[in-house]
Amino acid sequence: MKRTSRDIRTANRYEVLRQIIARSPTSRQELASATGLSLATVATLVGELLDLRMITEVGFEDSAGGRPRGLVAVNAAGGALIGVDIAETYVHVELFDLALNVLARAEEDIRPGESRPEQVIDHVAAAVGSVVAQAGVEAARVLGVGVSVPGQVDRATGIAEYAPNWNWHDVPLLDLLSEHIAYPLHLDNPLRACAVAELWFGAARGHEDAVVVNLGTGVGAGLVLGGGLHRGVSNSAGEWGHTTLVLDGRLCHCGNHGCVETYVGAPGIMRNLRELDPRSPLLHPEDQTATVDALARGVAEGDPVAVKVVRDTARYLAAGIADLVNLLNPEVVVLSSWVAARLGEPLLDEVREAVARHALRRPLAATEIVLSPIPTDPVCLGAATFALEGALQSVGQRAAQRVVSGKGRTAPTA
Amino acid sequence: MKRTSRDIRTANRYEVLRQIIARSPTSRQELASATGLSLATVATLVGELLDLRMITEVGFEDSAGGRPRGLVAVNAAGGALIGVDIAETYVHVELFDLALNVLARAEEDIRPGESRPEQVIDHVAAAVGSVVAQAGVEAARVLGVGVSVPGQVDRATGIAEYAPNWNWHDVPLLDLLSEHIAYPLHLDNPLRACAVAELWFGAARGHEDAVVVNLGTGVGAGLVLGGGLHRGVSNSAGEWGHTTLVLDGRLCHCGNHGCVETYVGAPGIMRNLRELDPRSPLLHPEDQTATVDALARGVAEGDPVAVKVVRDTARYLAAGIADLVNLLNPEVVVLSSWVAARLGEPLLDEVREAVARHALRRPLAATEIVLSPIPTDPVCLGAATFALEGALQSVGQRAAQRVVSGKGRTAPTA
Repeated sequence: MKRTSRDIRTANRYEVLRQIIARSPTSRQELASATGLSLATVATLVGELLDLRMITEVGFEDSAGGRPRGLVAVNAAGGALIGVDIAETYVHVELFDLALNVLARAEEDIRPGESRPEQVIDHVAAAVGSVVAQAGVEAARVLGVGVSVPGQVDRATGIAEYAPNWNWHDVPLLDLLSEHIAYPLHLDNPLRACAVAELWFGAARGHEDAVVVNLGTGVGAGLVLGGGLHRGVSNSAGEWGHTTLVLDGRLCHCGNHGCVETYVGAPGIMRNLRELDPRSPLLHPEDQTATVDALARGVAEGDPVAVKVVRDTARYLAAGIADLVNLLNPEVVVLSSWVAARLGEPLLDEVREAVARHALRRPLAATEIVLSPIPTDPVCLGAATFALEGALQSVGQRAAQRVVSGKGRTAPTA
Repeated sequence: MKRTSRDIRTANRYEVLRQIIARSPTSRQELASATGLSLATVATLVGELLDLRMITEVGFEDSAGGRPRGLVAVNAAGGALIGVDIAETYVHVELFDLALNVLARAEEDIRPGESRPEQVIDHVAAAVGSVVAQAGVEAARVLGVGVSVPGQVDRATGIAEYAPNWNWHDVPLLDLLSEHIAYPLHLDNPLRACAVAELWFGAARGHEDAVVVNLGTGVGAGLVLGGGLHRGVSNSAGEWGHTTLVLDGRLCHCGNHGCVETYVGAPGIMRNLRELDPRSPLLHPEDQTATVDALARGVAEGDPVAVKVVRDTARYLAAGIADLVNLLNPEVVVLSSWVAARLGEPLLDEVREAVARHALRRPLAATEIVLSPIPTDPVCLGAATFALEGALQSVGQRAAQRVVSGKGRTAPTA
């Protein structure tokens, strides 16, 4: 319980800014009605955001017969946020304004064998330098950099505890990055980045309970529960890719057998194809992306092998998604990341049909399954959102310190 | 967000009463420090509970040099709560005082074939009448009756939407019960009853994230996330028994194949035994309880078949628990209900060992697996707790109405 009042305050600050980003320009009255918060609370939070120049006053609107209402809008130029998506084969970096428009992009390839932390960090530093230069923003205006790295991370210490693709153990990633990058750094993983991107800007917006299923080389599920990200006690919730789908099934790199990831991650999909037709021209043995692209084209052209592989993959995926539906009873399941984007509607159709066979009637009736509507890289967007959340949290800490030093105890009556 | 301030207020009311029950007698100062709430908030909530005679003033304690502090304690005699556990083969009813001590018990057998709602309701009404008569409480002092029925329930309408054991569909259980029982009625299922019992009185107390694994005829997992019960969007979260453990495995009554329940529910355990030794003297084909008891005795006596069946069951169970650990990253996993109670420590030891082989290192390190410490029927206790929560919620509604009519808008600044 000790965390409650500060958590609520931070969550309310997020929610007000989310609504301003979605509705700019908007009035305090409209924000109060959209968030369910009192007008006084909204006015306080709007004041904090104005102080920080994250939003600006942009005029007045008439209110039927009453006093004209002040309008606020997000101050797009009030700061820049950087999102870093470190994946197995590339580093993708985007620089955003405060309305989360992309102002600049950079991509670096990670070649096979380039898996030492120092090598990866050099790519990150180069790409971050590139987006800042391209966008021409002053260093002081960069509010923060969110960094997503696959696997298990400790946010508080900035350590990548276990990155399965490169077998990294306890790499002090943020310490190493801070030797090259002077902006505030925030570390998390792609599951949670995608979930936060959907929660702020995508298909989870306005939902209390949502699951963002991340389909890439690795797979996992970002969990939005009770309107916020569910992290678990040590920030490792969401490892749905390492839940058992087939007891004693395919060996997984985690040491377990039959994990969901071994059937629906990109290497698992390649294996589904290989088991069906080892010599298929669709198969690019060293290239996951090319293979998934070939499958997508094959499905579009009615190639029976491609259709069968997508159907088999959808069936594995659906059994795993039905588990999430039965266990968590979410309002929406969002399919995100590059495999979902490339296989698109044909995969979605097969998945919906198969989930309906596996899930219980009641939770199934309450759930929608959709593709991520976010048009850009959701991991970069989510990582930038972590930087935004970090900036908002530090506002709150400064505001709280001000009040504490001025008035003594400030615990609210809630 | 609209639910936030009322939810927090209700959760704080629960938490203050939980702490009073745990610490009686206690002071407002101690409650503020235990809950992290302000003294003003605690004083308001304590005032509400005093008004309702759920707690009483019981004197003063010295505070070093300051004014003596008023002490409050739960008013055990201030009301009675009834918990009803409707299971496949019995109805178990307990009557509690407000300190959640059992004052009276009644049990009715449900014979095979007695599965019509009217038959079950007659047993419930008889048992409820019996505990009220035994305890000699006045009708006006019964604050409510919590009713647990297996399967999927709609709390708002009091309808048992799907009870798999009896193939009930959309039975208006509370309407039918209200023809026999005049007290306020609250419907939910055993998963959530056990979770709430652990959260208020058991191994989940004080934890933000906990999973209560319910092992009986059916199996499931009550989820405590973020310090409260996770219900999902249509109150059906926790159907872990119907997540897939073995794709295309044993047929489940839900229509899916390979559900966790088909391997670790009591009928699944009987099947594990039958597959190992179809003529085992441990097997009581028509009696789940007798079979599980025979297995427990067999393990105690070193019977190799019993040891093997418990080990096989523990391995299935552990793979399913590792899924919960990897997905939800809880602080504690509690094994509850009658199969867990009867197989006890030998099952727990095997489960702990096997979970360590299946789960990821980071979430595994953060999780404890324990047997439920609740000595009585946790379903009755949890059902009575729902009645207590219902009574506390109606206090809140009355208090809010009073304030609204007196002072106008009351939305807090949170």
